[in-house]
Amino acid sequence: MDLNADVGESFGRWQLGDDEALLPHLTSANVACGFHAGDPLTLRRTCESAVRHGVVIGAQVGYRDLAGFGRRFVDVASDELAADVLYQLGALDGIARAAGGRVGYLKPHGALYHAVTRHEGQARAVVAAVVAYGGLPVLGLPGSLLLTVAEEAGLPTVGEGFADRAYRPDGSLVPRAEPGALITDPAAAAAQAVRLADAGDVRSVCVHGDSPGAPALAAAVRAALSDAGVTVAAFA
Amino acid sequence: MDLNADVGESFGRWQLGDDEALLPHLTSANVACGFHAGDPLTLRRTCESAVRHGVVIGAQVGYRDLAGFGRRFVDVASDELAADVLYQLGALDGIARAAGGRVGYLKPHGALYHAVTRHEGQARAVVAAVVAYGGLPVLGLPGSLLLTVAEEAGLPTVGEGFADRAYRPDGSLVPRAEPGALITDPAAAAAQAVRLADAGDVRSVCVHGDSPGAPALAAAVRAALSDAGVTVAAFA
Amino acid sequence: MDLNADVGESFGRWQLGDDEALLPHLTSANVACGFHAGDPLTLRRTCESAVRHGVVIGAQVGYRDLAGFGRRFVDVASDELAADVLYQLGALDGIARAAGGRVGYLKPHGALYHAVTRHEGQARAVVAAVVAYGGLPVLGLPGSLLLTVAEEAGLPTVGEGFADRAYRPDGSLVPRAEPGALITDPAAAAAQAVRLADAGDVRSVCVHGDSPGAPALAAAVRAALSDAGVTVAAFA
Amino acid sequence: MDLNADVGESFGRWQLGDDEALLPHLTSANVACGFHAGDPLTLRRTCESAVRHGVVIGAQVGYRDLAGFGRRFVDVASDELAADVLYQLGALDGIARAAGGRVGYLKPHGALYHAVTRHEGQARAVVAAVVAYGGLPVLGLPGSLLLTVAEEAGLPTVGEGFADRAYRPDGSLVPRAEPGALITDPAAAAAQAVRLADAGDVRSVCVHGDSPGAPALAAAVRAALSDAGVTVAAFA
Repeated sequence: MDLNADVGESFGRWQLGDDEALLPHLTSANVACGFHAGDPLTLRRTCESAVRHGVVIGAQVGYRDLAGFGRRFVDVASDELAADVLYQLGALDGIARAAGGRVGYLKPHGALYHAVTRHEGQARAVVAAVVAYGGLPVLGLPGSLLLTVAEEAGLPTVGEGFADRAYRPDGSLVPRAEPGALITDPAAAAAQAVRLADAGDVRSVCVHGDSPGAPALAAAVRAALSDAGVTVAAFA
Repeated sequence: MDLNADVGESFGRWQLGDDEALLPHLTSANVACGFHAGDPLTLRRTCESAVRHGVVIGAQVGYRDLAGFGRRFVDVASDELAADVLYQLGALDGIARAAGGRVGYLKPHGALYHAVTRHEGQARAVVAAVVAYGGLPVLGLPGSLLLTVAEEAGLPTVGEGFADRAYRPDGSLVPRAEPGALITDPAAAAAQAVRLADAGDVRSVCVHGDSPGAPALAAAVRAALSDAGVTVAAFA
Repeated sequence: MDLNADVGESFGRWQLGDDEALLPHLTSANVACGFHAGDPLTLRRTCESAVRHGVVIGAQVGYRDLAGFGRRFVDVASDELAADVLYQLGALDGIARAAGGRVGYLKPHGALYHAVTRHEGQARAVVAAVVAYGGLPVLGLPGSLLLTVAEEAGLPTVGEGFADRAYRPDGSLVPRAEPGALITDPAAAAAQAVRLADAGDVRSVCVHGDSPGAPALAAAVRAALSDAGVTVAAFA
Repeated sequence: MDLNADVGESFGRWQLGDDEALLPHLTSANVACGFHAGDPLTLRRTCESAVRHGVVIGAQVGYRDLAGFGRRFVDVASDELAADVLYQLGALDGIARAAGGRVGYLKPHGALYHAVTRHEGQARAVVAAVVAYGGLPVLGLPGSLLLTVAEEAGLPTVGEGFADRAYRPDGSLVPRAEPGALITDPAAAAAQAVRLADAGDVRSVCVHGDSPGAPALAAAVRAALSDAGVTVAAFA
C-alpha cells in the first residue's frame, strides 16, 4: 500500500502545511505545480526534501486559479487544459530532476480531481497531456472516468482511498460540508486505512497534508498498516 | 550566422506578433515561457510550428510579471530567480519535447536581459538554473556579465547583435526612447546584419518579432546575409 | 436607444480593440475592471477618453481569469463573487472619478454574463454587490435571471440586443461556433439594430468592440438608428 | 499616539496573521489592497471587522506581486504606478464603504514603502494617485521623500515609528537580516513605543501583524502608552 499526501502548497510569503514533518511518513508526495499553489522555490525545496527522504514525487496538476486554490471548477477547453497540464508536468519535472529525482506519477488537484471523475473533455485532456509527456502512472478515484480513459490510453492507473475522510455505506465520500466528513483522530484514520487495505480495491491511501495534525496522522496510518502486515511502499 | 527572434508572446485572447509568418525566416526562436508572456497552448502551438520549420527552440525566460511584459526590473532574490528560471525551462522543454523538439538554448527576456549584463546575483541565478537543468548554450549581449559567468560555469555562450536597433559609435545600443533607436527599413536592417557578420564578434543576429513588418524584415536580413556569402544556420 | 460596446480590454503590452476610434460612436462604454482584462493605466486612459467623449462609463465585471479572458465559467462561491464584483466596481469607480466621471451602470462580462442568466447563486452575488455599492442600473440579457433578481432588489434594469450577432427565430442568439453567428457587414448590423429598436423590448444595442471593423460598424448602427428616427442616448 | 498594523494579508486558502485578535488593539488598520496580498473576500471581512472595532481603515497599497508579497522592488513607470495605486485605493474604498466605513489614509507596503523614501518617480506617483482620489493623509517614514512630496501637494502626513524593530543610534532601523532586528518581547516593544512617544516626532506607532505574538505585543504596547499618559487614538 502506498501512502500519499499533498505537499508543496505554500506560495511565497504564505506557508501551508508542515512538509518537512510530513514527508518522512509518506511514500508518494503530490507536489503542487504552480497553478493552484506552489511557487518555484517552494517546489524546489519540496522536491529536494522528497528525494532526501526517498519519497516518490508526483505532479499534482490543477486549474490556473491561485485565488481559488484550484478548488473551483473552471470550464477550460480541452486543448487549453491539455497544454496547461503539460506545462505543469514539465515545470515540476525539471525541478525534480535538478533535485536528483523525477516526476513519477500524476494526480489532479481539487476541483480538477472531481471534474475528471466524469467530465469527458477534461479527463481526456489530462490523459492526453500525460501521453504527450511520454506516459506516467495516473492516481485518482477508483471507478472515475479519468482512470478509465487513462487505462484505454495504456497508462498505469492507481485507485486511492482516503484515510481521513468519512465514507458512506455506498462507498462514496461524505461531502466536506457535512458534519463528520473529516476524520481528525489519528487512530480512527489508521483504522480506516487498514480497512481500505483489506478491501483490496485501492493501492494508495491519501492523507490530507494541510491540517496541523497531518504529520501525526500520517505516522499513525503508516504504523497501523505495518502492524497489520501491509507493506507500505510507493507504487511508482 | 544564426538569426533569432522572440515568438510565443501571445497570452490567451491577446495576440502579439505573427509567429506563423516569422518562424520560417528564423534559425532560432526565443519562445516565451509563461512568466512574462505565453500561455501554455500558445507555447505548444509555437513549438509545434518551430519543429515543423526546423527552427531551434530557445527558452526566453523572464520575470514573473505579465502586467509589465517582463520589461520592468524586479529585485528577485537569487534563490527565487534560479527556481523561477528552472521552472520556466522545464515547462517549455516539456512542451517542446511533446512537439518533437527540445529546448536548445536560453535567452533572458526584457528587463532580465538587461539586468544580467551587470547584476551579479541575478546573472549567477540564471546560470545556476541552466547548470541545474543539465546545461544549455546561453544567448546574450557580448561582454555581458551573464556570458562571463556562463563561460566560467562551462556553458557554451553566444553573443548576439541587433539588426533593427541603432548602435552608437562605441558599440552600445541607442536607448529605445531616443529618436532613431529602432530600424524599421528592411534594407537598412539587412545592411546592419551584414556589417555585424563582417565584424565577427556576434554569432547570432536578433530581429524583433512584435512589429507588423517583422516577417518582411527577417526575410530581408536572411537574404542579405546569404547574398553576402554568410551561412545562415542555428548555433545550437 | 443606448449604444454600448466593450472597451478597456487591453492588458499591459497587449492591445485589444481600437477604443479611441470606437468611443466617439458609443453612448455607453463597458469598461473592463482588471479581472478578465484591463490594466489600471488602460482603464484610466479609457475612462478619460469616455469622459472626453461624453460616453457613460459602465463597469464590465468578470471572473478573475486573465488567461481565459473571463470567457470560462468559474464556479465561484457566492460570497467570493460578491466581494470580487464589489472590488472591481470600486476600483473602476475610483479611476472613473479621478477622470471626472463615475461608474453609471454594471454589465457582467463573458462567461459571467451567460452564467447569471440562470445561475442563481452567481446572479444574486452580482446583485448583492451592486446593492452594497449603493445601487446602479444593471445591463443584461432580457429575461435573464440577473435582471429579475436586480428588479426584485429595486435596481434599474436595462435589456440589451446585439446588432452584430445573428438571432434565431425564437429570439435566442445563434451560438458563436455556428456559421453566420457574427454579423460583420455594417449595413446588416445597422438594419438589425433598427429592427431591435422597433421591436421595443431592448433599451440598449451592443456592438462588439474587439474586431478591426468595430468603429465603422458602430458608426453605421448609430447613423441608421438616427435615420430611423430613433434617439440615440445613454440610458444612465 | 496612533497604533497601526498590517491586516487583510491572507489570500484565498492562505491565512496570514490573526486579524480578529489583533484588530481590537489597533487604532488604524493598514488593509492590503489585493496587489501584494488580500483577496476581495478577505478585504471585505477585514473592513467589516475594523468598522465593528472602530478602527480606521488605511489602504496599504503595494506592487503587483503576489509571489513576492510586495517585498521586491519593481521598477514600475510613474504613470503605471499612479494608476495601480488609484485602482487599489478605489477597490478598497468601495469595500470599506460597503462595510460602513471608508479609507481614511494611505500607507505603502513593503518594497514600495522603502522605494518611496527616496525614489522620486515612484514617490510622486503615489502622491499623484492620492491627490487624484481627492486627497487622504499619507503615513510613512519620517523624513522620507514620500512625506515631503505629499506635504508639497498639500496632503496631511503622518510619520511613524516601529515598536518591534530595533533602531540604530542614528535613528535608522537595523536591517531585518541582522541579529536583533526584530523585537519580539512585548515588554521591550512597549518600552520602545513609550520612548517613541516621548521623542515626539512620530504620531503613529507600527507593530507587525504577521507574527503569532502580534496581538499580545499590540496589547502590551497600547497598555504601556496609556499607562505613560499617552492618549492612544487614530490620527485620521
